[in-house]
Amino acid sequence: MNIHKRIQNAALHPKIMPAAQAASLIPLGANVGMSGFTGAGYPKAVPQALAARLSALHAAGQTHASINLWTGASTAPELDGVLAKAHGIQMRLPYQSDPSCRQQINAGQMRYTDMHLSHVAPMARAGFLGTLDVAVVEVVGILPDGRMMASTSVGNNQTWLDLAQHIILEVNLHQNPALEGMHDMAHNMPMPPHGQPIALTHPSERIGTPYLQADLSKVMAVVITDHPDRNSAFDAPNEVSAQIAGHLIDFLQDEVQAGRLPPSLLPLQSGVGNTANAVLAGLNQGPFDQMTAYTEVLQDGMLDMLRSGKLSCASATALSLSPTALAEFNANIDFYRQRIVLRPEEISNHPELIRRLGVIAMNTMIEADIYGNVNSTHIMGSAIMNGIGGSGDFARNARLSIFMSPSVAKGGKISSIVPMVSHHDHTEHDVHIIVTEQGLADLRGLAPTQRARLIVERCAHPSFRPQLLDYMDRAQRSGAGLHTPHLLDEALSWHSRYLKTGQM
Amino acid sequence: MNIHKRIQNAALHPKIMPAAQAASLIPLGANVGMSGFTGAGYPKAVPQALAARLSALHAAGQTHASINLWTGASTAPELDGVLAKAHGIQMRLPYQSDPSCRQQINAGQMRYTDMHLSHVAPMARAGFLGTLDVAVVEVVGILPDGRMMASTSVGNNQTWLDLAQHIILEVNLHQNPALEGMHDMAHNMPMPPHGQPIALTHPSERIGTPYLQADLSKVMAVVITDHPDRNSAFDAPNEVSAQIAGHLIDFLQDEVQAGRLPPSLLPLQSGVGNTANAVLAGLNQGPFDQMTAYTEVLQDGMLDMLRSGKLSCASATALSLSPTALAEFNANIDFYRQRIVLRPEEISNHPELIRRLGVIAMNTMIEADIYGNVNSTHIMGSAIMNGIGGSGDFARNARLSIFMSPSVAKGGKISSIVPMVSHHDHTEHDVHIIVTEQGLADLRGLAPTQRARLIVERCAHPSFRPQLLDYMDRAQRSGAGLHTPHLLDEALSWHSRYLKTGQM
Repeated sequence: MNIHKRIQNAALHPKIMPAAQAASLIPLGANVGMSGFTGAGYPKAVPQALAARLSALHAAGQTHASINLWTGASTAPELDGVLAKAHGIQMRLPYQSDPSCRQQINAGQMRYTDMHLSHVAPMARAGFLGTLDVAVVEVVGILPDGRMMASTSVGNNQTWLDLAQHIILEVNLHQNPALEGMHDMAHNMPMPPHGQPIALTHPSERIGTPYLQADLSKVMAVVITDHPDRNSAFDAPNEVSAQIAGHLIDFLQDEVQAGRLPPSLLPLQSGVGNTANAVLAGLNQGPFDQMTAYTEVLQDGMLDMLRSGKLSCASATALSLSPTALAEFNANIDFYRQRIVLRPEEISNHPELIRRLGVIAMNTMIEADIYGNVNSTHIMGSAIMNGIGGSGDFARNARLSIFMSPSVAKGGKISSIVPMVSHHDHTEHDVHIIVTEQGLADLRGLAPTQRARLIVERCAHPSFRPQLLDYMDRAQRSGAGLHTPHLLDEALSWHSRYLKTGQM
Repeated sequence: MNIHKRIQNAALHPKIMPAAQAASLIPLGANVGMSGFTGAGYPKAVPQALAARLSALHAAGQTHASINLWTGASTAPELDGVLAKAHGIQMRLPYQSDPSCRQQINAGQMRYTDMHLSHVAPMARAGFLGTLDVAVVEVVGILPDGRMMASTSVGNNQTWLDLAQHIILEVNLHQNPALEGMHDMAHNMPMPPHGQPIALTHPSERIGTPYLQADLSKVMAVVITDHPDRNSAFDAPNEVSAQIAGHLIDFLQDEVQAGRLPPSLLPLQSGVGNTANAVLAGLNQGPFDQMTAYTEVLQDGMLDMLRSGKLSCASATALSLSPTALAEFNANIDFYRQRIVLRPEEISNHPELIRRLGVIAMNTMIEADIYGNVNSTHIMGSAIMNGIGGSGDFARNARLSIFMSPSVAKGGKISSIVPMVSHHDHTEHDVHIIVTEQGLADLRGLAPTQRARLIVERCAHPSFRPQLLDYMDRAQRSGAGLHTPHLLDEALSWHSRYLKTGQM
């Protein structure tokens, strides 16, 4: 392939260089904003070269050589993985799901700022996160006038290009040039006190241009790569996830019949993961037509729904497709380009739009408590799993805020329904519906003790139900307030017991 | 006074009746939506007549005779107080601050659904809260064509008038007819999937009409009253609240100097209460000019700022003025009508607008924990205090989310900074700044263990600081994850100890 067909702006040609040379231009200690959202659209070469450089520096005695890493969300082993293994990340934001990062965060070796994704770009532009020194952004190609064809994720890329003092571009020849036209960038969004309405009223609408833009004088390196994204395959839906999907679809049907939802529902948001994907598979077989999606990542299940016609359009900030689904996507990209819009995560997750569109938010959880508080981020209160991601953006502003999980984990040793969650990411005020394979609890309009009864009866696993009812009954007789009765000495005892005995 | 000057629609004249007769038209067990937001604009007569009727029914053996009460927010003794004392409220939403309600909720005798105020109208209109049987709304007057002059609060009044099957109007002759023109009602706001942008870009702008509207055929009674609103006087700022205000103003000045806020700041939101009022008094003496407010209630402090010219305009959903301030307001109402807009609480608290305007949210809290989670609602985990009100609407979507409290309560027996809050209303993801009289902790962009160090050093009272540092140190050495290190057996022990010994 002639790389000049991908890099049509001649002024950038002299800046083409190997990844190692580009990585050497990143100052130690810098705040670096990289592209990437799930395993899509992240830079493939510079992070690895940077990790090698940092490892060499560490071996030479510069043991603290590192960067602070900002991204769209999670990335892939070639970015988070290699940099973490090289002990090259001092601070990480706003989201990660990498095993090495997780291990270092929980070992106190990496600082992690776990943020609502819709907050990242506005806080960065307001200067609340400090100065962005370098942006490292994967693109598909560069037009003669310098406009850039965005890759398989958008995330915070335009914000990083706007804010960074220096830019490194990775042009990935492996990405499909036919992605061109699928994106919708909002440039120069006015900040308070000059804020304006965002003129989107349907997931399929566009308000910007299809291209990333940057001051090309800030580009200090262009690196050529030719590597695929790295997203994992999903598990086939199992019995538990199929039961969760069944309860959820029954509920949505009831809502339509009661006139509380239109027959084609409202724009769907779906979290990432096997349970979420199983729900999408259920919806693809279900009774609803002409659905739409206003979501964060477009995963296999939504691609299936677009192909079947059940879903008429989808708005997201990233493609999170398994290798098989990605091949199908690329084979039919003209079909998908008419039905998919990829946006900045500030727009995909914007409270204004989620509220206006009336999104149905379907997110997975680690655990919920009897009063409807949800933990999305922590294991046994202290250790991070991944992070809150966009779940709070959607749950807080959605028309329906749904959280789901199998009722037990670790072969039945852990209950997903507990007296009090060990970390609170979504409070009782923000959770409408909880679903497990046992059933669905509709919490709308209920007082805390009503919620508790319903969650335990409908969602808890039978093996934990008697213990939960016992906790509730004793809390109600304890003399504490009866609005949200708790036994403070026992509220977190299930987690404590698990840490001590391996069993809740 | 000629009441026909206040009730100019002749069709309503035959429906004028005594409060007791109107109250008798409310079905037992009904969902009743009443006006009222703080001690402003609530119906003054029908609730008392209803309470008398329910008490009589109870005495006659109908021990469960009651209603479900929906309002804008808190009300006054003549509404929440009398109905609670009559054991006449089975379920209450979305907010209360009445001693009798609180006592009954915490005794398990009244169900309470504590909601984000911006969620109430959309959830009611979507049918998520059930059917609204009766609306009881105070108005100032009725025009010949049936349009109604709204009172000192707007709250959910238009929504109740739209949704209720039957309407009772209280025309309060005591309210100033010169309030006419101060309100901005948005009628028939389109629901998803037909949502549209809300065309407000400045707190002073208007998008609707000044009048409430209703299908007059639904009006089953009109009751004449002549009683003042009942709002309490504020305490004069004391040393502690003045210190909190001082830290906050220093911080805001630093932000302006760093270019992160404009010189006139961004629209202010202020919670209700003495500390919040002291901060407003501080701002009125402070260095900022041409400020604006986009808030929920307009209290004495903001009125002072409007009069001094420090504040150029204020948007709110209710006036929450002490008797002295109310007299001054009425004496100069033409001045204030040019500077105040009263809106539905769905608009005053709307995430779209709070985010777009870049509101600086300043709310009081009961307690914060070392990681920055905030409890706004519960005493020692189980008992409700008031409710979340609008604090979550503002904190989540604000440009700056600030929470404040004195560092100790009950003469030093309770610390407002604890290892883990006993109830979570605002999570670590939503809290930017914590202020006590000890100092201010700026948490933006920090990882949990950094936040903990800062909150303890800056905000905790010296008498609790060693205990907090000891907890942090032992949690970090405990072998639990080091992202948010907790000792699960001790995390809530301070609250438990207080319940047992009266001292944290």
